[in-house]
Amino acid sequence: MTAPNRNTLWARTFADELARTGINAVCIAPGSRSTPLTEAFDRHDDIETFSHLDERSAAYFALGRARRTGDVTPIVCTSGTAAANFHPAVIEASQARVPMLVLTADRPPELRDSGANQTVDQEKLYGDAVRWYKDMPEPEATDRKLRSLRTTAARAVSEATGVDSGPVHLNFPFRKPLEPTYVEDDVSADLSREALDGRNGSPYVKTTSGAPELSDDHLRKLADELAVDRGLIIAGPADPPGFNAEAIAAFAHATGFPVVADPLSGLRFGGHTRTTTVLGGYDAYLDERVTADWPDPEVVVRIGASPTSKPLRKYLARTDARQYLVDPTGQWREAEFIATDLVEAEPSVLSWRLSQLVRNRPDTEWNRRWADAEATHWDAVDAETDAFEGRIAADVADLAPEPATVFVSNSMPVRDLDRFARPSTKARTVLGNRGASGIDGIVSSALGAGSATTDHLTLLTGDLAYYHDMNGLLALGRLGVDATIVLVNNDGGGIFHMLPIEEYEPPFTDQFKTPHGLDFEATADLYDLSFDSVGTDEFRDAYADSVASDGTDVLEVRTDAEISHRVREDLRERVVNKLTD
Amino acid sequence: MTAPNRNTLWARTFADELARTGINAVCIAPGSRSTPLTEAFDRHDDIETFSHLDERSAAYFALGRARRTGDVTPIVCTSGTAAANFHPAVIEASQARVPMLVLTADRPPELRDSGANQTVDQEKLYGDAVRWYKDMPEPEATDRKLRSLRTTAARAVSEATGVDSGPVHLNFPFRKPLEPTYVEDDVSADLSREALDGRNGSPYVKTTSGAPELSDDHLRKLADELAVDRGLIIAGPADPPGFNAEAIAAFAHATGFPVVADPLSGLRFGGHTRTTTVLGGYDAYLDERVTADWPDPEVVVRIGASPTSKPLRKYLARTDARQYLVDPTGQWREAEFIATDLVEAEPSVLSWRLSQLVRNRPDTEWNRRWADAEATHWDAVDAETDAFEGRIAADVADLAPEPATVFVSNSMPVRDLDRFARPSTKARTVLGNRGASGIDGIVSSALGAGSATTDHLTLLTGDLAYYHDMNGLLALGRLGVDATIVLVNNDGGGIFHMLPIEEYEPPFTDQFKTPHGLDFEATADLYDLSFDSVGTDEFRDAYADSVASDGTDVLEVRTDAEISHRVREDLRERVVNKLTD
Repeated sequence: MTAPNRNTLWARTFADELARTGINAVCIAPGSRSTPLTEAFDRHDDIETFSHLDERSAAYFALGRARRTGDVTPIVCTSGTAAANFHPAVIEASQARVPMLVLTADRPPELRDSGANQTVDQEKLYGDAVRWYKDMPEPEATDRKLRSLRTTAARAVSEATGVDSGPVHLNFPFRKPLEPTYVEDDVSADLSREALDGRNGSPYVKTTSGAPELSDDHLRKLADELAVDRGLIIAGPADPPGFNAEAIAAFAHATGFPVVADPLSGLRFGGHTRTTTVLGGYDAYLDERVTADWPDPEVVVRIGASPTSKPLRKYLARTDARQYLVDPTGQWREAEFIATDLVEAEPSVLSWRLSQLVRNRPDTEWNRRWADAEATHWDAVDAETDAFEGRIAADVADLAPEPATVFVSNSMPVRDLDRFARPSTKARTVLGNRGASGIDGIVSSALGAGSATTDHLTLLTGDLAYYHDMNGLLALGRLGVDATIVLVNNDGGGIFHMLPIEEYEPPFTDQFKTPHGLDFEATADLYDLSFDSVGTDEFRDAYADSVASDGTDVLEVRTDAEISHRVREDLRERVVNKLTD
Repeated sequence: MTAPNRNTLWARTFADELARTGINAVCIAPGSRSTPLTEAFDRHDDIETFSHLDERSAAYFALGRARRTGDVTPIVCTSGTAAANFHPAVIEASQARVPMLVLTADRPPELRDSGANQTVDQEKLYGDAVRWYKDMPEPEATDRKLRSLRTTAARAVSEATGVDSGPVHLNFPFRKPLEPTYVEDDVSADLSREALDGRNGSPYVKTTSGAPELSDDHLRKLADELAVDRGLIIAGPADPPGFNAEAIAAFAHATGFPVVADPLSGLRFGGHTRTTTVLGGYDAYLDERVTADWPDPEVVVRIGASPTSKPLRKYLARTDARQYLVDPTGQWREAEFIATDLVEAEPSVLSWRLSQLVRNRPDTEWNRRWADAEATHWDAVDAETDAFEGRIAADVADLAPEPATVFVSNSMPVRDLDRFARPSTKARTVLGNRGASGIDGIVSSALGAGSATTDHLTLLTGDLAYYHDMNGLLALGRLGVDATIVLVNNDGGGIFHMLPIEEYEPPFTDQFKTPHGLDFEATADLYDLSFDSVGTDEFRDAYADSVASDGTDVLEVRTDAEISHRVREDLRERVVNKLTD
């Protein structure tokens, strides 16, 4: 490592050490104070840089990459409000356990709270939302400080990617000069080899992380408790890097329990569905009228975050089952407060180990009820002839090429995918921001995920989420990401039709539905993409064409939120009536 | 006050009390959890609602209104990352002492940290950036709680608008039902009149705030110290609601000191410039070569925040003057650390009182030097025939109609306005976000300011700031704000040409200059505005036409950042050469 001054040496050393932990990409928003970091990442041969002009989009792009890969993509910004623009994505990363490494540049300590330009209080800026915060020392070219820097890099990545993965924030003070200009005597000639160049061919500190596993005794006890006739495996949204589908499938076979697979669980689609009972229509048929004469499950095993489906959560709340929450961090993610057991263990490993110990005979009556309900639901969906938003989600789930990464927005798209994406053997990675469930940063999260894979990328989004992060579209041309963007445009907040406020006018239209009348076709010129507005009935063909061609297409489908809401409700009623006949 | 349930009563009571303190507008981002607040503000006759779809833009819009009016415009959002999107504007408000009242809805306490959907840790979300944080109690219809609520409303406004004005954050937990649906026995029939309806015709608590004033003894001592020949009044960016120009002018007359007027001081333009020496060209001529043979000022009196001009700050750092920082909060905003005296006093009041006590005879030699420098600078600007970005700022300052509100972006526009906007008697209110000096939220801040005045509104912005807050343009049609938007488009970060990193390629172009190639004409279709791309030489006429007509025009001027930078430098050299001849 050579460097013309201490700042440059500091930043290059840090970038070098990150690269040794395996980091191969970084998102950078331009700024002056962060110049040493930017320069160091830009010149590193093994690190790809993604330049973003809006820090909010930058952070979500990095989040999306980490969602897809399970690895961290650091984000870099200058001092001031730039860092606050990262905050929404930091919170999402914290809630959804997505690895993230935030590197903010700061003024040196003497300029803090001095009225100096672009100087704000960045200490612990993200409060408790980060797993680790460190105010970095001032750069200095001494052995001990460089060793501390290399150690910090290793530790930051380890904290961000551990069992309770999430955001880490390092705040770097820099004093001018910030550019790689020569400063006499700034870098001593007699630094030790290891401080200067790191350890030979390896990270300075190699971190090896374990995950919680039950003792053999506890495992056997749990296996005994699972020896029941009626059970369910509830797979909620998965923490990155996702569940091991084989392990969960083995567990399902051993217990005979069906898998209720949230669209974000990673278990709705894939080869394992060939031999495993994977349920996907529960959001429609888990109605109180249907389940009233069903026996309760005896055991429910819940993995992942709280499921997207409210009918599912309500169903679980009214059963009398023994409910196990399996969580590797030992945190509760169950807001009906009906869980009876918390099991702190890595869910895929636990599932695999249990699959070796449990040997239930599937309860055919129990499984038949679920199979009937599923068949009734999917028949009703197939038979539905009215155009509605749910059809678009169903089509995407059906027609996305293999392998596909499908990023789905919050609000209605994820709910539609939950209810209308039929489980299949197809290879799809379905991702969403279900930590805080915001509609912000969706475009960037999707494109970030796309930037990390050779899969075809589809983004399924509503118009408010598309608008909220339109800035994120800049990554398409500028960073060379391609996608098919399915824009379900119902001109405002369609989800509010699901809520009782729909009955109150005013304020319903002006304050909740909030029609905006935006003509999104203009985004075609702005971001150099192809834009087609198609009817619901034309969508299947248009989507199939788009996924078969290169470049980015936005397929806008103009829909009526209220009509779509009624069709969903009618469909549910038909399913419920059929099942309670 | 009547209400069908406790949540509705709670929110309506709060809105009622805010209105009694004089609040007449609120910015609302749609969401479910905040329904009680939204409903209450929407139905209040004396409160105008501005609906925004991007919370980041909403907060900056409210910031801009408060910048223009000095009063607070509350912002409302739902739970989750929505609140984090307010964070950049909260920091700007904190740094720039702009009144702000953030009202976030939250899940009730039992759902926090439970994995419940859209539930994040909102407690003290903005850390030390707020003047006051309160986790509101759960709504309940009891006398004492309603009195506490009314008191909190009064106190929140008072905290936000006091001497150290800034953001206040109230976090409101709500449990369903959120809409105004009737809930039996939820609102007791025997609440006291005052708890239910507030005090007759007045706020529940009237707050009367004082501001620091010096004792007569201290004042006389200070007046004595100002009895010198050579002095300067440095007026930096003003805290809202701005300085009293008459008081500052009286102080300038009494001391005989020229006023060095930052473009954001509110003192660069206006009637007082007729009889007061107001300087505006210092950024060009306060070069070390020029001031080397000037005598030092004996006294410098600094009011407002740290000036925008770096040459000015450097000049002040190398003088041997006694330097007084006058600040009503007693905070330092002077990062060269050369101030000798901190005076905790309201600057306009202090200026007025001092003007009664000081009777200097202006030092003609001292004043002549400044007048010469000014004349030399403005002659050079007038004689400059090359097209460059500074000309656009000069034209706006010259041609904006009277009265005008001119909002100026950070980065180059504010620097150009600083150097090229000639002091004049014209009625202009020039505003900017100089607290944290970010380029985020500029469009919304400007439109927010415009929404609060009948002045003509001009926004002077660069392309990166325009891009960063393009979402803010939605307010034009949706909220009925008109503006002339002057978009100086040099395709990237022109300011980096001023920095040494310009010499380093790579990473200069890819990571700093960051050309984006965006064709902003597409924003015309998206936001239904008129868009004209004009040359620098056509700009004067196009701008004059625009300000004379209704509706919103974007006047894009494509410029070359590097050439503009060279012209600025050449101009400075000519001024310096002339003055050192």
